[in-house]
Amino acid sequence: METRPILDQTSDVPLYRQLYAQLSQQIHSGKLARGERLPATRELAGLLGLNRTTVSAAYEMLEAEGLIMGHVGKGSYVTAEPASAGQGVDWSTLLDRGAPGVHGVGPARQVISFATSRPSRALFPLDEFRASCEAVLARHDLADILQLGSPAGYEPLRRYLLEDARLQNLAGPGDDLIITNGCQQALDLIGRVLLRPGDTVAVEDPVYTGLKALLVGMGSQLTGIPVTSEGIDVGQLQRVFERERPRFLVVTSNFQNPTGATLPAASRRVLLDAARAAGVPVIENDAYGELRYFGAPLPSLKQLDESGGAVLLRSFSKVSFPGLRVGWAVGPKPLIDRLRLAKEAADLHTDQLSQAVLLEFAESGRLEAHRARVLGAGAERLAATLDALSDSLPTGARWTRPEGGMNVWVRLPEPLDAGELLPRAHREGVAYLPGRYFAVSRHEPGALRLSFAGLLPEEIREGIAILGRIVLGELESAAQNLEPAPAMV
Amino acid sequence: METRPILDQTSDVPLYRQLYAQLSQQIHSGKLARGERLPATRELAGLLGLNRTTVSAAYEMLEAEGLIMGHVGKGSYVTAEPASAGQGVDWSTLLDRGAPGVHGVGPARQVISFATSRPSRALFPLDEFRASCEAVLARHDLADILQLGSPAGYEPLRRYLLEDARLQNLAGPGDDLIITNGCQQALDLIGRVLLRPGDTVAVEDPVYTGLKALLVGMGSQLTGIPVTSEGIDVGQLQRVFERERPRFLVVTSNFQNPTGATLPAASRRVLLDAARAAGVPVIENDAYGELRYFGAPLPSLKQLDESGGAVLLRSFSKVSFPGLRVGWAVGPKPLIDRLRLAKEAADLHTDQLSQAVLLEFAESGRLEAHRARVLGAGAERLAATLDALSDSLPTGARWTRPEGGMNVWVRLPEPLDAGELLPRAHREGVAYLPGRYFAVSRHEPGALRLSFAGLLPEEIREGIAILGRIVLGELESAAQNLEPAPAMV
Repeated sequence: METRPILDQTSDVPLYRQLYAQLSQQIHSGKLARGERLPATRELAGLLGLNRTTVSAAYEMLEAEGLIMGHVGKGSYVTAEPASAGQGVDWSTLLDRGAPGVHGVGPARQVISFATSRPSRALFPLDEFRASCEAVLARHDLADILQLGSPAGYEPLRRYLLEDARLQNLAGPGDDLIITNGCQQALDLIGRVLLRPGDTVAVEDPVYTGLKALLVGMGSQLTGIPVTSEGIDVGQLQRVFERERPRFLVVTSNFQNPTGATLPAASRRVLLDAARAAGVPVIENDAYGELRYFGAPLPSLKQLDESGGAVLLRSFSKVSFPGLRVGWAVGPKPLIDRLRLAKEAADLHTDQLSQAVLLEFAESGRLEAHRARVLGAGAERLAATLDALSDSLPTGARWTRPEGGMNVWVRLPEPLDAGELLPRAHREGVAYLPGRYFAVSRHEPGALRLSFAGLLPEEIREGIAILGRIVLGELESAAQNLEPAPAMV
Repeated sequence: METRPILDQTSDVPLYRQLYAQLSQQIHSGKLARGERLPATRELAGLLGLNRTTVSAAYEMLEAEGLIMGHVGKGSYVTAEPASAGQGVDWSTLLDRGAPGVHGVGPARQVISFATSRPSRALFPLDEFRASCEAVLARHDLADILQLGSPAGYEPLRRYLLEDARLQNLAGPGDDLIITNGCQQALDLIGRVLLRPGDTVAVEDPVYTGLKALLVGMGSQLTGIPVTSEGIDVGQLQRVFERERPRFLVVTSNFQNPTGATLPAASRRVLLDAARAAGVPVIENDAYGELRYFGAPLPSLKQLDESGGAVLLRSFSKVSFPGLRVGWAVGPKPLIDRLRLAKEAADLHTDQLSQAVLLEFAESGRLEAHRARVLGAGAERLAATLDALSDSLPTGARWTRPEGGMNVWVRLPEPLDAGELLPRAHREGVAYLPGRYFAVSRHEPGALRLSFAGLLPEEIREGIAILGRIVLGELESAAQNLEPAPAMV
């Protein structure tokens, strides 16, 4: 080993991770060549003034990554080639052209995490789920479920959902339905069918990270329309449609992710009128619509639409089991026909076992019973969130007051930056996603998303209390820093 | 109804379908307006000289499509708008820009269908599948399976497959593994990560329809490399790589779809050398590799590759249950990292229930026991296919002699066109896919694919006997037609 690793004892990054990172970099760059023997852990620990366990931990990580291999009694040897060695495929160059993807935030252990918009694991009705599986396993046509299926979806489930959509006036005579791997895949298929690189798509600002990543990955331009506490600002739609000529608009009518905002009924009509006049399709992403804990439900855009320009996306993921990837899209038949072809190219069809189990779960009434419990629990968690925010956050902080869904949007008082606070929040035991994850063009540094649905009320109260203490502390520091430092005057 | 439908009594298309198609067209074009009453079935039957049931069947199809609605005692009314009525979204124009998709062939009922490359439904080990599900349902961590998961795959399955790949030397130290919705989605994700519109991809010619549709849908140019009975023609690779500069090569080393051809070991080395010299990644699509019924297995391209340029795609679909969409890709870590981001954008992750069930199915030894039965049955079906071809096809017909997989490629004697024979084959009770479905740039009119794995040996013998009679009959007609007709001299 020619280059001795240099570690920073004052860094927040643990020493073993620093050591791992530097050795890994030396292997990838070819400084440590394939076949070269690494110093024994005892030797390197002595050289760097570290505990031997620190060096062992770094070596273990390298070995787990396949970069080195240890032989008992012989020491550890570099097994991987440098990243760009010699002839062959230059993956880093090939991959360089692609668009950046979504990077998750990995909170440390024992952290109360408001970072993921997902249902509570504790609420999963396991016995009801088991009973639904048992019923599917006992079916005489089980073999059909295991055989190659249709790109449109498992036909009994598709029929059930379409019938239900017709009864609710969510599907008209010219509509059809396709089953997808959750709403995310429905958005992907719509993009594949309607977009070419360089096309513009109108989205809410802020908006769900997964939608941004998907559209940017397809080479689209995003034009963001601000979201207020009353949902997307419909007053700006006409101008955006005329100036930007978007291929379509994606909008969340109920309990938008990340803001929790819901579009009032009158705004829905304004939105549909503007879209119809401009000939712009409206993709109504309604993953949260069935999770209304308070207040009266509103008609969906799809129900209000009379021009055949709206497409509704729904999913089992938020109401029941997100690990089973089943959602659906209802829209005009010519579009659904094309989505079916795109679906076939993408992955042939959605997993049929889960489709059959979810059909049984729904048809047996278990889904509706579960939804009632989820609504009760959601009401409690949402109330806990809003109460704790009132109790814990200082004057100047603002937040949305949704009537359902999984997310509350918090704006910290100036000059706080929610992203800058995050490392301290992690250290003190709370995680969230700062506003920058969701920004399209208007970044609000003080904003953050709290996803409350996966937590217990007591966790919510504790987590928000921690957040409140951090915010107060940081505000005090900021106030002190604002006083002119003598040397600067 | 202003325009009276005109039906062709001599057509192959049933009268009710002709009537349906014409009425549907009149509704879409606006000739039959929304709210207009259709003639009573009895009345229209009289007018057109049809049975009343013929008219009823056409009306039922229109109603199922949401184009008309029947009211008992009041007759049927048009409910749908014409396709391009008034303001709003013009779906047909919006959708016109997209690429064409895959169109399936829908064989009539009671037809022995060699059209689909899938396992036999009769072989599914339902009790073993049930036992695997039961074991998953009894697990203490069932709730984790139902919760939102990782884009890389259900971690216990991912670890199991990676470990197995390492033991088989299919994964080296620099490799990683991602779980996908079958091989099809792995191909999709690779395309998303490596391709931009206009890029060239090298593929076999003929090649699996789903790959063609996928790549064309992404705006790629395909350059086809001929497949002989010895697999892809490796002698042409260097020239194609230099002249066409493909972004990657997709190749099926074992029992290629549609030809059934397998690449000999020496050719595999030539292929890898050419790819390494040109820096072209090799995507080894090996959905059929574990279905070898006769002969000795060959090392895979991924096993032979020493330069880190090969990616292996495998799947549970062909060996066990295609309705459960679980496959995987093994390849260099930097690529797999990017596939994980693309997977997250596409559909977050693969269904976890099926992943957990398949892990249990594999770990319990049931998969290996099932594979043994599948190999026995496959050997029998393949032998039945090859024997029946020898017995039933005339001199001049040629076909491949694969040692595994699901497909045999047949070339009929000139001047027969397998596509032109297909309507007659359907009428006489046998279906297949003609060569044009698989052609990239070299269309062989006489070629067709026989997918034998889903059929019983007796069905195979009967179906090929029918095919043989048709081929003989058509050859005789063709010979007569070749004699100059007196009037033409």
